[in-house]
Amino acid sequence: MNFKEIIQETYQKVKNIDDNGQLASYIPELANVNSDNFGIHISTIDQINFGQGNCYDKFSIQSISKVLSLCLAYRILGEKIWDRIGVEPSGTAFNSLVQLEVDNGIPRNPFINAGAIVISDILLSNLKNPKEDFLAFVRNISNNSEINYSRKIAESEKSIGFRNVALCNFIKSFGNIDNEPSKVLDFYFDLCSLEMNCKELSELFLFLANNGNTIKNPNSILTKSQSKRVNALLQTCGFYDESGEFAFKVGLPGKSGVGGGIIAIHPNQYVIAVWSPKLNKKGNSYKGVKFLEEFTTKTQLSIF
Amino acid sequence: MNFKEIIQETYQKVKNIDDNGQLASYIPELANVNSDNFGIHISTIDQINFGQGNCYDKFSIQSISKVLSLCLAYRILGEKIWDRIGVEPSGTAFNSLVQLEVDNGIPRNPFINAGAIVISDILLSNLKNPKEDFLAFVRNISNNSEINYSRKIAESEKSIGFRNVALCNFIKSFGNIDNEPSKVLDFYFDLCSLEMNCKELSELFLFLANNGNTIKNPNSILTKSQSKRVNALLQTCGFYDESGEFAFKVGLPGKSGVGGGIIAIHPNQYVIAVWSPKLNKKGNSYKGVKFLEEFTTKTQLSIF
Amino acid sequence: MNFKEIIQETYQKVKNIDDNGQLASYIPELANVNSDNFGIHISTIDQINFGQGNCYDKFSIQSISKVLSLCLAYRILGEKIWDRIGVEPSGTAFNSLVQLEVDNGIPRNPFINAGAIVISDILLSNLKNPKEDFLAFVRNISNNSEINYSRKIAESEKSIGFRNVALCNFIKSFGNIDNEPSKVLDFYFDLCSLEMNCKELSELFLFLANNGNTIKNPNSILTKSQSKRVNALLQTCGFYDESGEFAFKVGLPGKSGVGGGIIAIHPNQYVIAVWSPKLNKKGNSYKGVKFLEEFTTKTQLSIF
Amino acid sequence: MNFKEIIQETYQKVKNIDDNGQLASYIPELANVNSDNFGIHISTIDQINFGQGNCYDKFSIQSISKVLSLCLAYRILGEKIWDRIGVEPSGTAFNSLVQLEVDNGIPRNPFINAGAIVISDILLSNLKNPKEDFLAFVRNISNNSEINYSRKIAESEKSIGFRNVALCNFIKSFGNIDNEPSKVLDFYFDLCSLEMNCKELSELFLFLANNGNTIKNPNSILTKSQSKRVNALLQTCGFYDESGEFAFKVGLPGKSGVGGGIIAIHPNQYVIAVWSPKLNKKGNSYKGVKFLEEFTTKTQLSIF
Repeated sequence: MNFKEIIQETYQKVKNIDDNGQLASYIPELANVNSDNFGIHISTIDQINFGQGNCYDKFSIQSISKVLSLCLAYRILGEKIWDRIGVEPSGTAFNSLVQLEVDNGIPRNPFINAGAIVISDILLSNLKNPKEDFLAFVRNISNNSEINYSRKIAESEKSIGFRNVALCNFIKSFGNIDNEPSKVLDFYFDLCSLEMNCKELSELFLFLANNGNTIKNPNSILTKSQSKRVNALLQTCGFYDESGEFAFKVGLPGKSGVGGGIIAIHPNQYVIAVWSPKLNKKGNSYKGVKFLEEFTTKTQLSIF
Repeated sequence: MNFKEIIQETYQKVKNIDDNGQLASYIPELANVNSDNFGIHISTIDQINFGQGNCYDKFSIQSISKVLSLCLAYRILGEKIWDRIGVEPSGTAFNSLVQLEVDNGIPRNPFINAGAIVISDILLSNLKNPKEDFLAFVRNISNNSEINYSRKIAESEKSIGFRNVALCNFIKSFGNIDNEPSKVLDFYFDLCSLEMNCKELSELFLFLANNGNTIKNPNSILTKSQSKRVNALLQTCGFYDESGEFAFKVGLPGKSGVGGGIIAIHPNQYVIAVWSPKLNKKGNSYKGVKFLEEFTTKTQLSIF
Repeated sequence: MNFKEIIQETYQKVKNIDDNGQLASYIPELANVNSDNFGIHISTIDQINFGQGNCYDKFSIQSISKVLSLCLAYRILGEKIWDRIGVEPSGTAFNSLVQLEVDNGIPRNPFINAGAIVISDILLSNLKNPKEDFLAFVRNISNNSEINYSRKIAESEKSIGFRNVALCNFIKSFGNIDNEPSKVLDFYFDLCSLEMNCKELSELFLFLANNGNTIKNPNSILTKSQSKRVNALLQTCGFYDESGEFAFKVGLPGKSGVGGGIIAIHPNQYVIAVWSPKLNKKGNSYKGVKFLEEFTTKTQLSIF
Repeated sequence: MNFKEIIQETYQKVKNIDDNGQLASYIPELANVNSDNFGIHISTIDQINFGQGNCYDKFSIQSISKVLSLCLAYRILGEKIWDRIGVEPSGTAFNSLVQLEVDNGIPRNPFINAGAIVISDILLSNLKNPKEDFLAFVRNISNNSEINYSRKIAESEKSIGFRNVALCNFIKSFGNIDNEPSKVLDFYFDLCSLEMNCKELSELFLFLANNGNTIKNPNSILTKSQSKRVNALLQTCGFYDESGEFAFKVGLPGKSGVGGGIIAIHPNQYVIAVWSPKLNKKGNSYKGVKFLEEFTTKTQLSIF
């Protein structure tokens, strides 16, 4: 059975299960999404592309953008980046503040909010026109000039982002933020507001399945070693407090966002993107995780 | 360059670096080991076997035995085992007690002490002659009847194991230990006292690189799915609070013990065992980790 | 209005309020008590004695005995005792284990379980016949040879005391327990099993209202300074995570037990003992706290 | 021996001890103070006033002002204030953020920063001209129109107050801050910048020793019950993580500030203010605490 058939079959099966998830409600704008949306798209390094369901509808990729900002910062600073940020899973959200205290303001990894805020600070210090340059970086990888920020989502998040303001100022109190917190957060909220569809996501992230190189317009985004390391981080830290379970059940590095999107990467093979807006208790797409479990079980492929 | 050459070269290089590690001192007997010992052994599914240095000297495998007790319990109970134990990385040791409190006595994963104690309790309830049966399980996989517990090490650990007594009783207070704590711990300390050399370790664990099946005496230890899941757990939780970094730098699932041993598994390829007694700050073999970093860099193979 | 009238009036008022509390259920024997019991007794340094309700019925004083074991240990060791135990409120029970970790096995104060276990260890090392000598100490202060341990309660607590076994072994792992944990706990559970009635309690503790001296059979139990310090500790730490609220609403040093008893001390004036078995959410007698609030409001006396 | 003699004697004794404390360095302006300053002033309800040393030199009272803002808010809102703030000691600073998380943004008490920030928010919502009205409240109690904020100190604190910005936004994320964080903090930093000398402090706080009433210009600031409750809070929560020890060694309710000032209140008797800028490890004036220990030992007066 090939990818196409497995995706079609799994799509039908998961589409009809009871969705016990909940729409993300903490950002007002995110709650306005139709919760029935369900899309999948795969892109392989052999140039197979196949989508199903709402795979051409754009949604807010939210935390998935943290992978992109990490890649850009890693590309610029190299291994020096790890002086300011760790590579260990963080345990519960609850631990996040405690561990910042214990670790003197060094976030545990780049995918928790604290870590992504430090990455935003690094980019702010190293890019001439941070917002424009970051967008150019993303558009260039994907060869797609239509990718953009969503003003509405960014504003919605800013209006209630007190916890992120707290985090940023807390880290700054330890000296691990160089710029003004309000500027760092303004940039951070914009990064999180990127909108894409499943097709764009699976194409965009293909460089992580290809040792750091894009395929369509050959271009080295990361070195082979950096690409492997980003995947390792995605494996251990990509799904908040469900990272262990995702590795256990799906067996691929990946990243989720509260908009209901998930990307999963099979090194040397493919990237698959899934979108379904309702989230499970750990904050990851309920149907998205279910789909990927079924998918890797059926393909009998996982990195383990 | 083949495995043999890479191992020889890396062995020489790492042998001569300054070893900043410290011998484990909390178990009196472990402190009596010659800290210059350094051994490596690889076993591939293609039946290549190669060793270097002290690869035939036995040492205390300590926490590496937690993989074996997990496999036996998993084989017996199947997925029900996860009702009593989680699959998430635990963060710092510091968090261990707090998280037991928050999670009502369910340890975060089977490789922290709390988790391995629950596994011991499960085996105690499910084996007729726990100590003999477990040993038979291990000897059978490895086709090696000389593997044994060390009375001396077990006694040494019992004499100072107050923290583990605390853990076991704490978990029991939540109802997640069925047997008497003193019996659970007696079994647990024995499990940790297993002695093997690098050659025996790499041969023994080859079934985890081979989808759950032994090679020399064909025998299914775990199903393919179970084998993949154990590897996923080893990737996210095998190195205490250094699991993220090991995934990041080495890129293979693995497990370490305070005796200075490490096993690393490349699914569908090989198992490599390393031994050097001095430990880094996170409690993992200093030279062992260094060796594996170099080794996977040179082979350019990692699962990511 | 005098004490007698205020007690009678307050007794009637509080007797009839809805009791939202719950019987302590974690010790099987404690759940067998009639939850309607409600007794009060006051003893003043002017030799006024007055009781109401079930003031002559004995009950399990539980943690109130921690004040007695502290006083005996303090009398024996003097200020050296504070090398092994702190004098700060502990915050939530939740924090207890974490703070033992942070503070290297030094409990925050002598009234949390961890602290009382260390006190038991101190007495075990310093008394010839610990159980007999402690009982003699208590009987001597109160001039009452009928005070005794309850075998039934002690056994009941031992049968489910896994959490205290955990605490004791955890502290031992830091080196702050000298004796064998099983012996320390055997003694500790006996101490907690003392049975008295309100009359006996208010008479017994009168020395803390009298600068360390008994009244009926003149006898110095503690120095004036020690007596003041014990009262200060009772004020800041006597009611677990409700200590602040008790100081705030009642304004007297005191101590509660899960058997539903409370003593409160007005230095230079009186001791009052209250008993009502149902406990509020923080584990203190629901009606007992209500009674004392009303009582100090009506007498317009508090130390503040 | 009377107060005057005891103060003189104790002043000489403590003046000459080795001061192991450290100047507060986190606020740049505070580090500019001459660390040899040492002043004491007592005011009794019998109208005895006596000072020694630098008792007429003004200093930054810092957290001592938290008592004043609490009193004003308590006076305005009455017991409703406790819906938004607790009355329990907080344990370590470390616990502060964790407990806000556990307690859904309700600070443990009004004297930790989190609590004082909520009090500032309450005042901001209830005063017409917050800064002017608060100053008028303080000047009115003390009948002293020269008390004022220090622009320099407030600015200095604002420039490095990231941790307080974090706290305020974190609490706001739970909904327990009504106003804009930047306005709340601007007011908060001003409150902390009040400058007074020991004489002014002991006179100002005399109402807390006098059941809520001023003496010189008769005026009810708080009810008797409120005054007792504020004293109870000062006893259990006035000295951060040294509150238990202060109760234990000094035996009086009180409050310290990082400027090196301390006030201590003996209900129905006196208020004493001490100032010496170097702080002990818990952040309280090293000589100030020593002086008060000696003073209450010599007077043989404490509330216990």
